[in-house]
Amino acid sequence: MTNNLVKRILNGDVRALASLMSLIEDGDPKVKAVLKAIYTYAGRAHVIGVTGAAGTGKSTVIDRMTAEYRRRRKTVGILAVDPTSLFSTGAVLGDRVRMRDHFVDDGVFIRSFATRGSSGGVSAAVRKAIHLLDAAGKEVIFVETIGVGQDQLEIAALAQMVVVVLTPQMGDEVQGMKAGLAEIADILVVNKADLSGADETVQQLTALFADEDFLILATSAIKDQGIDLLVDRIEEHRKKSLGNGKYQKKRLNLCREELLSLLREKVFAELAKKIDNDSLEAQVKLIAERQIDPYSAADRLARRIDL
Amino acid sequence: MTNNLVKRILNGDVRALASLMSLIEDGDPKVKAVLKAIYTYAGRAHVIGVTGAAGTGKSTVIDRMTAEYRRRRKTVGILAVDPTSLFSTGAVLGDRVRMRDHFVDDGVFIRSFATRGSSGGVSAAVRKAIHLLDAAGKEVIFVETIGVGQDQLEIAALAQMVVVVLTPQMGDEVQGMKAGLAEIADILVVNKADLSGADETVQQLTALFADEDFLILATSAIKDQGIDLLVDRIEEHRKKSLGNGKYQKKRLNLCREELLSLLREKVFAELAKKIDNDSLEAQVKLIAERQIDPYSAADRLARRIDL
Repeated sequence: MTNNLVKRILNGDVRALASLMSLIEDGDPKVKAVLKAIYTYAGRAHVIGVTGAAGTGKSTVIDRMTAEYRRRRKTVGILAVDPTSLFSTGAVLGDRVRMRDHFVDDGVFIRSFATRGSSGGVSAAVRKAIHLLDAAGKEVIFVETIGVGQDQLEIAALAQMVVVVLTPQMGDEVQGMKAGLAEIADILVVNKADLSGADETVQQLTALFADEDFLILATSAIKDQGIDLLVDRIEEHRKKSLGNGKYQKKRLNLCREELLSLLREKVFAELAKKIDNDSLEAQVKLIAERQIDPYSAADRLARRIDL
Repeated sequence: MTNNLVKRILNGDVRALASLMSLIEDGDPKVKAVLKAIYTYAGRAHVIGVTGAAGTGKSTVIDRMTAEYRRRRKTVGILAVDPTSLFSTGAVLGDRVRMRDHFVDDGVFIRSFATRGSSGGVSAAVRKAIHLLDAAGKEVIFVETIGVGQDQLEIAALAQMVVVVLTPQMGDEVQGMKAGLAEIADILVVNKADLSGADETVQQLTALFADEDFLILATSAIKDQGIDLLVDRIEEHRKKSLGNGKYQKKRLNLCREELLSLLREKVFAELAKKIDNDSLEAQVKLIAERQIDPYSAADRLARRIDL
C-alpha cells in the first residue's frame, strides 16, 4: 500500500494527497513510511509563510498570489492552519469558500489543516504536510496562519520566508508589534490599500524598520492591485537569499530542528519503556500528598532508571 | 537570597510574588530552588480555569466572582494568560483596567501572564505560577485564558475545574462547540443575560448536554446578577468532587503530568550532552542535500549514542 501511495504522491495525485493529509491530522503512524520514501524526491518547493490578524484579508492576498503564480505557470499548494479552538469562528471556512476558483485547477492544492490529534504538536504535522506537497511537485507552498500562540510562531519558522499582512487601520498598533515583526517577517504587506491611510501606514512602517532589510508594499487584494509586484518582490527575495547563502542556512536550521525533534520523540519512547509504573505512581502519590516536591521526585526516578 | 524569597512568598508578600512571576516569564533557572522549597507548603488552593471567546465578558465575570469571594473572606489570585501574539489587541489590557478596584486589596493578587521566553511551554510556566500563589496563601486561584490553541487547552487542564463563559449571541454556534465543551467544561455560564435570548441559550445548552453532569447558569456580570449563585455552584461542585474522589484523581493526574514533564526535560538535557556536534551536523547536511530522510538519520544517531 505504501508503494502505491508513494507513486501517486510523486505523480501529484490529488486524492492520495488528501488522504495522507487526513492521516497526518489524525497522527496516524502509517504516514512515516510514506514520508521516508518521498523525502529524497522533495526539496524544490518555495515555502512562503503568510500570517496576519483576522480581518486583514490574508486569505484574499493568498488567493490572488495563487492566481498570479498560476499565470506564471507555477503549481501552488496552500495549507491554511486552523488554531485548535473551542469556539468556532466561521472565518476560516468563509475564507476557504472564496478560494473556490482554484478548486477546479489541478495545479493548485488547497487544504485547511486542523491538527488537534497529531502527535508532536501542530508544527510537526505542518512540516509533514509541506514535505508531501513538495514531493507532489508543488513549486510554491503557502502556509497560512493567524499570528497568535506559540504554535503559530513555530509554524512561521517552517517557511523559507514570511509575509505579514497588515491593514491601514492598524496605525498606532504597529509600534507595539515592532519586535514581533522584526523577529519573523521578510515582507510587510499593507493590504486594503483602497482604504484611507494606506500610504501613511507604509511610511510609518518604513520609518519604524529603517534599520531592517524589509520589503514593505501596499496591496488591495480584493481589487487585485499590487499583487503582481508582491510576487515579483517575493521572487527577488528568493533569488537574493539563494545567492547570499541565507536560504542554505535556513534550510540547514530546518533540517536540524526536524532531526532533533525526531530524536526527542525517540527518547520519550525509550523513557516510557524504562520507567516502571509502580515506581512512577509511588512518586506521584508522594507529590500529591506534598511529602516531596516534583523536582526531587524527578531526580529520584532519574537515578533509578540510570538516566 | 532563595531563603529570603521563600519566607516572603510564604508570608504572601506581593512584591516577592511579582518578581518571581517575572522570573518565571523569563524562564529564569533561579525559580526552581524557590519552587522546591515552597512546594510542601502549597496544595490548599482551589484552582478554577475560566475560558471563553473574546467579547464574552469573562474578565468581568472573574472580577465579580473575586468580589464575591472577598465578601466570603477568601483570598484570591488571578492569572490572566495572554496568548503569545504578534498582534496586540488591546483587549487584555482593557480588561485588566476594569479590575483595578482589586489592586488596592491585599487579599487579591492579579497578574497578566505573558510567557514568550519561558522554557517548557506556556503551561509549564502557568503551573509554576499556580504553585507560588498557592504557597502564598491564595485560597481561590482563577486562571483566565481564551479558548484558542493547544496551549490554552493545556492550561485549562491545570485547573481543578473549568468554567466556560458563553453569551446569548452564540446561539447556533454552540452545537459546533459540543465536543470541545464536553471535554473541558464543568460549569457553563451564559453571561450577558441582560441581552435577549439568554433563556433560550440556557435551554439549548441544557438539551445539548442532557447526558452530561454540567451546571449551566446565566449571569449578567456587568450588572452583578447571578454571580453569588455561580460562586455557590462552584463551591458545591468542589465539595461534591472532594467527596466522590474526583478531585483526588484530578490531583494525581496533575502531579503525574508535572513529574513526567520534568523527566522529559532531564532526558532532553542528557540527550544534548550525548550527541556530539560533528555527528549531528554531518547528518543535518545529508538531510539538507536530500541524500537521507530525517527518520533514517535519527535512527543512525540514536544507534551511535546508544539510546
